[in-house]
Amino acid sequence: MLSPTPVTPSIHSLTEEQNDLVEMVRDYAGTALAPHSLEWDRDHFFPVETIKQAGELGFGGIYVAEERGGAGLTRSDAALIFEELAQGDVAVAAYISIHNMVAWMIDAYGDASQQERWVPALASMQHLGSYCLTEPDAGSDAAALSTRAVRDGDEYVLTGTKQFISGAGATDVLVVMARTGAAGASGITAFIVDAHAEGIHYGEAERKMGWNAQPTRAVTFDGVRVPAVDRLGAEGEGFGIAMSALNGGRLNIAACSIGGAQWALDRAAKHITERHAFGAPLSQQQSLVFTIADMETELQAARLLLRSAAHSLDTGHPDLIAHCAMAKRFATDIAFTAANAALQLHGGYGYLAEYGIEKVVRDLRVHQILEGSNEIMKLIIGRSVLGRVS
Amino acid sequence: MLSPTPVTPSIHSLTEEQNDLVEMVRDYAGTALAPHSLEWDRDHFFPVETIKQAGELGFGGIYVAEERGGAGLTRSDAALIFEELAQGDVAVAAYISIHNMVAWMIDAYGDASQQERWVPALASMQHLGSYCLTEPDAGSDAAALSTRAVRDGDEYVLTGTKQFISGAGATDVLVVMARTGAAGASGITAFIVDAHAEGIHYGEAERKMGWNAQPTRAVTFDGVRVPAVDRLGAEGEGFGIAMSALNGGRLNIAACSIGGAQWALDRAAKHITERHAFGAPLSQQQSLVFTIADMETELQAARLLLRSAAHSLDTGHPDLIAHCAMAKRFATDIAFTAANAALQLHGGYGYLAEYGIEKVVRDLRVHQILEGSNEIMKLIIGRSVLGRVS
Amino acid sequence: MLSPTPVTPSIHSLTEEQNDLVEMVRDYAGTALAPHSLEWDRDHFFPVETIKQAGELGFGGIYVAEERGGAGLTRSDAALIFEELAQGDVAVAAYISIHNMVAWMIDAYGDASQQERWVPALASMQHLGSYCLTEPDAGSDAAALSTRAVRDGDEYVLTGTKQFISGAGATDVLVVMARTGAAGASGITAFIVDAHAEGIHYGEAERKMGWNAQPTRAVTFDGVRVPAVDRLGAEGEGFGIAMSALNGGRLNIAACSIGGAQWALDRAAKHITERHAFGAPLSQQQSLVFTIADMETELQAARLLLRSAAHSLDTGHPDLIAHCAMAKRFATDIAFTAANAALQLHGGYGYLAEYGIEKVVRDLRVHQILEGSNEIMKLIIGRSVLGRVS
Amino acid sequence: MLSPTPVTPSIHSLTEEQNDLVEMVRDYAGTALAPHSLEWDRDHFFPVETIKQAGELGFGGIYVAEERGGAGLTRSDAALIFEELAQGDVAVAAYISIHNMVAWMIDAYGDASQQERWVPALASMQHLGSYCLTEPDAGSDAAALSTRAVRDGDEYVLTGTKQFISGAGATDVLVVMARTGAAGASGITAFIVDAHAEGIHYGEAERKMGWNAQPTRAVTFDGVRVPAVDRLGAEGEGFGIAMSALNGGRLNIAACSIGGAQWALDRAAKHITERHAFGAPLSQQQSLVFTIADMETELQAARLLLRSAAHSLDTGHPDLIAHCAMAKRFATDIAFTAANAALQLHGGYGYLAEYGIEKVVRDLRVHQILEGSNEIMKLIIGRSVLGRVS
Repeated sequence: MLSPTPVTPSIHSLTEEQNDLVEMVRDYAGTALAPHSLEWDRDHFFPVETIKQAGELGFGGIYVAEERGGAGLTRSDAALIFEELAQGDVAVAAYISIHNMVAWMIDAYGDASQQERWVPALASMQHLGSYCLTEPDAGSDAAALSTRAVRDGDEYVLTGTKQFISGAGATDVLVVMARTGAAGASGITAFIVDAHAEGIHYGEAERKMGWNAQPTRAVTFDGVRVPAVDRLGAEGEGFGIAMSALNGGRLNIAACSIGGAQWALDRAAKHITERHAFGAPLSQQQSLVFTIADMETELQAARLLLRSAAHSLDTGHPDLIAHCAMAKRFATDIAFTAANAALQLHGGYGYLAEYGIEKVVRDLRVHQILEGSNEIMKLIIGRSVLGRVS
Repeated sequence: MLSPTPVTPSIHSLTEEQNDLVEMVRDYAGTALAPHSLEWDRDHFFPVETIKQAGELGFGGIYVAEERGGAGLTRSDAALIFEELAQGDVAVAAYISIHNMVAWMIDAYGDASQQERWVPALASMQHLGSYCLTEPDAGSDAAALSTRAVRDGDEYVLTGTKQFISGAGATDVLVVMARTGAAGASGITAFIVDAHAEGIHYGEAERKMGWNAQPTRAVTFDGVRVPAVDRLGAEGEGFGIAMSALNGGRLNIAACSIGGAQWALDRAAKHITERHAFGAPLSQQQSLVFTIADMETELQAARLLLRSAAHSLDTGHPDLIAHCAMAKRFATDIAFTAANAALQLHGGYGYLAEYGIEKVVRDLRVHQILEGSNEIMKLIIGRSVLGRVS
Repeated sequence: MLSPTPVTPSIHSLTEEQNDLVEMVRDYAGTALAPHSLEWDRDHFFPVETIKQAGELGFGGIYVAEERGGAGLTRSDAALIFEELAQGDVAVAAYISIHNMVAWMIDAYGDASQQERWVPALASMQHLGSYCLTEPDAGSDAAALSTRAVRDGDEYVLTGTKQFISGAGATDVLVVMARTGAAGASGITAFIVDAHAEGIHYGEAERKMGWNAQPTRAVTFDGVRVPAVDRLGAEGEGFGIAMSALNGGRLNIAACSIGGAQWALDRAAKHITERHAFGAPLSQQQSLVFTIADMETELQAARLLLRSAAHSLDTGHPDLIAHCAMAKRFATDIAFTAANAALQLHGGYGYLAEYGIEKVVRDLRVHQILEGSNEIMKLIIGRSVLGRVS
Repeated sequence: MLSPTPVTPSIHSLTEEQNDLVEMVRDYAGTALAPHSLEWDRDHFFPVETIKQAGELGFGGIYVAEERGGAGLTRSDAALIFEELAQGDVAVAAYISIHNMVAWMIDAYGDASQQERWVPALASMQHLGSYCLTEPDAGSDAAALSTRAVRDGDEYVLTGTKQFISGAGATDVLVVMARTGAAGASGITAFIVDAHAEGIHYGEAERKMGWNAQPTRAVTFDGVRVPAVDRLGAEGEGFGIAMSALNGGRLNIAACSIGGAQWALDRAAKHITERHAFGAPLSQQQSLVFTIADMETELQAARLLLRSAAHSLDTGHPDLIAHCAMAKRFATDIAFTAANAALQLHGGYGYLAEYGIEKVVRDLRVHQILEGSNEIMKLIIGRSVLGRVS
């Protein structure tokens, strides 16, 4: 016979601490980010000072150990934080996510000296970080990178070019993946690099569809000398370190997508409630209500996938990579779709900058491409399923 | 500053008891249902004996109180059970879901005498139940039903016709919603009716696209006399009782959809791994791998929505109706899509009965229509969102 | 300056002759096919006599030369014919399409003797034909077939097994593709084979999701001796002949899909106009009207793609293969989607056999798989585009 | 027996004159528009001088009568022209479409004096036109407009505000729909208004997601006096005139969408052919090829729907409104989808301004909203189908 089981906590019911956390972040996002978001977008302004305030609240090292100035939170908590931050400004939230990847990489893989020298300033956001993996000729195929690091005595000499580097030019610490060995993933090593070191050249800010509040630039390393003590992990471990950081990065980007889309959904629901046409509120138009329902349902599904994957990452689930890939793929796809639907629900107003909807659409668009494109996510997921049945 | 929170259990990590439960159901489904499933479909055979065995295992009153012979499990557990049952046979699992609705309605809303007289035999599946709501002229608009119950001394006299009644003709207990008062939902009352009572006529088994292992018939009440003591709840409460049962019914149908689709996904993944074309396994075709990835991702999202909604139902969440509607809408839609994709992944073989895939496609199709069509679900969800913002 | 051009005929405006043709076919389909369609499906009955009547009307050799008993019509006309036939019965129309492929292959590639001996009886449908290409281990990869034909004096000896052969067991003439040479497409030769020849064994009728009015069977050739004079074309030309027939076959299947879906759309539009819920016709529900609009729009787009591709085939356009692939892919996909939407628009009634909608859904499903699966179509189309830009 | 029909011209085979026309427009678009497109977008620059050159080529009055300086072409020709213009710059092409609506309205509905005084300068583009229908409180529900025109002797006095007016502030002639009578469509009258008349105030250029090379502004009429001789048509005919112009406007916008998406598709196909990842060109990735195939197929379907609808408009087909609505709905939806897919196929590069893809995505987005939103199109189409069956 069946034996009864108790009702267990659900991932849709947050703990009291989490509710407090959400409220605190919501407050910050609503006051420090949201009121300036349109302006930053229009002016292509990277709000460094505002971001540094986030550091004072603990957002610079969310899952960095407390003893090194981090908040010591879980990935599940981080997902909540980024969803709220993105309701204030998607592009700024996404940059903070990348900064957290950098801080965490050094915290997780650095030796004691590296942890001591680099992590606290990142965790407090006195220093900002950039993650330097992508190259002009190696996009999705990250293991094909050609930036070289050649050992020379107590130093490595870095030569090559990175592209689409978030925050570049305004940040202080770069984690750079470079080739020290043979072709392929096993020849790659990670380095902690002072962003102001001699021989580093920053390209012009790339003009983009969105993410205007977050500059991306090409970064050229022209014989940059990096002390060997700032090699992160052993030679050949760089690709693994970079990928491991991306698991969390994918969750945070998923969370940013959900936050942005939720903001757009709430605006759209309000809009159709208030706006009238044909003698009645738009919310009397059944097809619009159905659109709202689909947005809500898919966002909620994405949120659950995200929290479930965060739990996998927190607990070291053997399938965590596939779980993170599913959350990233689904959340970033449906969030773009939802935000784009919110634009349509606004009619012509949705196309105007002042309503903010079109900005969210533009900002969310790149989430389907970066941190591993959604095509790469599908390969990861698909192969995981095929591995399970064979 | 942020304060750390502990890692909390996730809805994707089952308890040990739940894992045992899943294993037990899987065993039953794999031995009692799966081997006969194609045959039952072909022969339009309702396997009453096999279903009654399920009663011995406790599947007849999954969330019925233990003191009345039920298993006393949660809705979350029920979701696990129906997902596994459906891997054996979607149509049979779906019937068992409907039976559980009936048993639970009497257990939850019946008085002590009704509970004692009707529930134990349903919980043990010595008696099978049918849920009689839908009428030929009142499909999605259930409150428009026209079957009448007129009080006559210690009895009510029922007159009218119900349609699409699952199990009808082979079941023992009917819960019938009939009009005792004015038009609309508030005029409806529920009755517990002996299925063999005089004046009940069963139509021919309806020929359907699928669900062949579960007969549906029209049921005509031609002056059927029902003792007043078998009125379930007060006059006018019937619509509320019927809808309340549907919340759980929707979750169970969602679970059946996920189970069926998971079965199809596993077969498809295996098929493309084993089958060769153009000199390599089909699993080398990237587009097929992407299809597998999408199926997996959406099924996992559906599963989480389902478990989350089950938790809402278990804990009486104020938005539980919308949560159940989201789970039902999303799960039944994406499960049909996934099963249909599995058919395509099988090529011509998917179209053949012997592979079982096309049966699952046919069986799942009706889940998008029944227990409240997915259009009705969208109305429920959309209005819930609009209510939130206004 | 611009110079004015005259208004030219459009593919959506038929000629008077074509309108007459459509009317004639509609009459046949409405009287000879439609009234029996549900019954044939239920009984898995192949209506050979009814099909032969179609031969008397000229449907056996639609684009076979008139001097050999054909109708000498264009592919554009054939598209019109099959759309109308399918409104009567999708599965029967689809068989007639396959028969026409066979008749045309001999008419187009046969020598004078073959044309004289085989074509007239096919064109008049005194003899029915089957197209024998697919094999159990070579589905989409048709060039990998393993049935062998070995020359032995004035004969070839055929050995191997074909699968999913439409009409097999009830037809008189087989066109069989078999390997006479090396691996790959260039080793394949076509043969005209008497379906009653010694050594041919027909498997049991395959149980399928649909197409029940059209039997498919495995056909085993166990040392079947075929006179060398019945080799169609030269050795090694068989694959090209088979593929060339498929261009037209794809158009006809596309037409059958459109016809079936149009029938379903018309029924659905009528249903929501007549059926009431919540105090008004269903056609007051905006989302249902939108569904109808999408069905209409996509069907019309499919029809235009089809007619355009037929024109390409009629005129030998250099991109005709890609044009036919586009028509087949789009028409069969959106027709299934439309028929499936028609089912949903019918609510529970759509799931019942008597309304005929679910039959169309089942019949149309296989069109996405056969005559080159839609995945193969996408490869053809995609490569054609890539060839254009490079 | 069937009687053969001749092969008829197809809408996918252009006449020689049309091929010449296409080539001429392509040349203009490739030299006058494309090289400056990114710059105009970045600088929000409305290239009036360049547009006036288009007037010299006859693009100012494409379907205006030759005797009044127009090109006297068909709507089918216009569709070809706008598809090519949009390959140079979507936003500029779309403005030219709107200008043509204005020129045509006066040419078609004006009296001899109006035709003589207004049309030639519009046809030659010495004067540019704006179409003033939409108002802040009457978007899709155009008949609800509140701008009033009150007769005062030989003049009308216009008071009210229009929104989203393309070209406003840089144009010379406004066609304004204003209310002269009761509520609803029948109270609306059209006026030809000198854009520089006293009392007209132009708002700031609206900041938008795209269409940056085409300013839209609010236009306020503050007691603007319009000579009664410049009333276009009779009182109460304004709504019909405005709607009638929109039929052609929808086709032209559909053509602009197709042109923009075709440009994006061609770039994407080239990109995946040239770019390498994982040791091979991206065009070896099957899923990318499938995406290309879907884009091609849907664009071709849209093109055929467009040409077919243009033919309906040219020939006065009774269902021309629904045909135009189908072409507009389908073309603008799939073109956005295709351009967005082209962005994804470019990976990170697609998000950068310099590749031009993201601009096309932004420009095409508004086509789903304007000239009657796609939701309005679905209502038109759906009701047309329902009218057919009832």
